[in-house]
Amino acid sequence: MSERINFARGVPAEAAFPRAQIQACVESLVSKPDVTAFQYGPALGPLRFREWLATHHGVNLENVLVGDGSVALFDILCRIWLQKGQTVLVEEPCYDRVVCLLRYYGANVVSVRMEDDGPSIEALETAAKAAPLFFYTVPDFQNPSGIVWSGEKRRHLVELARRGNFTIVEDSPYRLLRYKGVQQPSFLELGPDVTVQLNSFSKIIAPGLRAAYLIAAPETISVAAKMAENTYVTPGNFALSVAAEWLHRGYLPEQVDTLKKLYGPRQEAMVSALEEFMPSHHFARPEGGFFVGVTLSHAIDAGKLREEARQAGIDLADGAGFFLDAQPTPFLRIPFCSMDENTARRGVRTLSEVVERCST
Amino acid sequence: MSERINFARGVPAEAAFPRAQIQACVESLVSKPDVTAFQYGPALGPLRFREWLATHHGVNLENVLVGDGSVALFDILCRIWLQKGQTVLVEEPCYDRVVCLLRYYGANVVSVRMEDDGPSIEALETAAKAAPLFFYTVPDFQNPSGIVWSGEKRRHLVELARRGNFTIVEDSPYRLLRYKGVQQPSFLELGPDVTVQLNSFSKIIAPGLRAAYLIAAPETISVAAKMAENTYVTPGNFALSVAAEWLHRGYLPEQVDTLKKLYGPRQEAMVSALEEFMPSHHFARPEGGFFVGVTLSHAIDAGKLREEARQAGIDLADGAGFFLDAQPTPFLRIPFCSMDENTARRGVRTLSEVVERCST
Repeated sequence: MSERINFARGVPAEAAFPRAQIQACVESLVSKPDVTAFQYGPALGPLRFREWLATHHGVNLENVLVGDGSVALFDILCRIWLQKGQTVLVEEPCYDRVVCLLRYYGANVVSVRMEDDGPSIEALETAAKAAPLFFYTVPDFQNPSGIVWSGEKRRHLVELARRGNFTIVEDSPYRLLRYKGVQQPSFLELGPDVTVQLNSFSKIIAPGLRAAYLIAAPETISVAAKMAENTYVTPGNFALSVAAEWLHRGYLPEQVDTLKKLYGPRQEAMVSALEEFMPSHHFARPEGGFFVGVTLSHAIDAGKLREEARQAGIDLADGAGFFLDAQPTPFLRIPFCSMDENTARRGVRTLSEVVERCST
Repeated sequence: MSERINFARGVPAEAAFPRAQIQACVESLVSKPDVTAFQYGPALGPLRFREWLATHHGVNLENVLVGDGSVALFDILCRIWLQKGQTVLVEEPCYDRVVCLLRYYGANVVSVRMEDDGPSIEALETAAKAAPLFFYTVPDFQNPSGIVWSGEKRRHLVELARRGNFTIVEDSPYRLLRYKGVQQPSFLELGPDVTVQLNSFSKIIAPGLRAAYLIAAPETISVAAKMAENTYVTPGNFALSVAAEWLHRGYLPEQVDTLKKLYGPRQEAMVSALEEFMPSHHFARPEGGFFVGVTLSHAIDAGKLREEARQAGIDLADGAGFFLDAQPTPFLRIPFCSMDENTARRGVRTLSEVVERCST
């Protein structure tokens, strides 16, 4: 019997964790007199980490807060910003955990339908009229769709944010993982005056380190740090110091290169398999990141599809979580980083058979 | 010029961090095929950690959730339990961060005045009539007072909780650090049916690992885990796996012994200095933990006292933070773990001179 195929969760490949480098970083921390990694410390996170990030992004130290995972940092943003009933814009489909948090805080969540290169200009303009507090976006290799916003659409959103006085919350965990094509400027680069960037090394080093950060105006960082202190006192200084040491040693470019060489062919294989076995269904061809998002061409009972897939050995995420309202046709988020090319091909072939079976 | 003396923050002694053991634990994690330390994982925390805790406390695996610091876990409890306006009982003085969080969630915070062995039976009975949702307590070597609840008062609170149908939230980070005297049974031991225990290895291994946990009924753990997943996805698996490895290797008893040998004499020295230089002011003689709490015998402007102390080279915490309302006489939280005996003596002598000066 073949092994089960997990299309449910998009996690990094186990082989990609730089274990020996992490060990070397710990040895270094343990042998130096500095106690940052072991002790309580400022809620802003270890200074060495913030210094590296300030240099890397060309911002000031006062623009940087380090914390444990970008979702936890998004939670802090919600805590300091969001009042019940305020309007927040998200993409559709959208990263499900963010929708979940926004609903916990009682936001009026409004979605903007994605095209293959970001929402249409018209959709952006309509959405901006709702007087949102902020627009949450993953503009590079979006989770769950793999979509990249075009430069034109980015610039248009920056203009709308300036005119409408709202913030763009740019979540960028996949940005460094471009396997082909040309990088677009980030929202932070295009509109630093209206952008707050969430970022993370979970997809680059290892999720277990929870090494994430927030880049924002000094006033925002200062209020966020106070809220962070009240919520968790000190972030994970040990793991964050390991990440800081890893970055200061200059391991990043080589690691990104390794990941591109590992993940690029896997993405190609996944796209090829989808083209071969599911040509009638729609998906944007991704150029990086972790996911391909497939929208089926016709209505199928999504629950039945997941159950049949499960029985056929394929675990699927609940695609409905990526949408605010029920969708007529199922959306499938297909991760490809942690499986080899043969598994991807076998998975998509089986999945296509299940879709076929559920359609009749 | 003498070095400044930090009475403001109670942190572990730097010399006490088991650096070599931590490095050995990392080497072990790096060399094994298991990916828990590096990967995303369940919001409950690493299984190995939960297994060790279940055995250690004699509870089931379903009773244990592991997370990043006990304040963050208390925040999760507030999120799943607390509705605006509900009554929550705290000790007075109380750990300031908890009061801060309770106010953020809009709780009606009611305090119960501490005597030298916990609140009076009468005060407990009066407080229980307020129909509280829970009572937050640090019954062993309390932060900020160093007080230990007597067995009788513990048993009485358990009875009140059973009759009044409220929960005891027992926060126990200092419990293992008893330098003399006899341990009282914990609330978890006395009333597991009405107790939720927060605990942490911050004071035992190192705060930077953020290794903390929650012991509660399976239904509470399950709801807390769902909320934790929505808030931070996965706790700090790398640092938590280091802590788990450290515990499984059996380093705990030796480390506790080392800390007792280091901190016990420091506590003695601090108490002696207070007896010598500040005999007219009240403090409960602690038998463990990190703090002695001193209540001055007469009214002094607390702001002026802190400022004069600062000028004399002594940093003090804002004692007002440990109380819900303004106090007529200043309360001083004096930490002793991270300073040698001579520094403690010098600090208290200088402090007594400042108090004297501010009193005239």
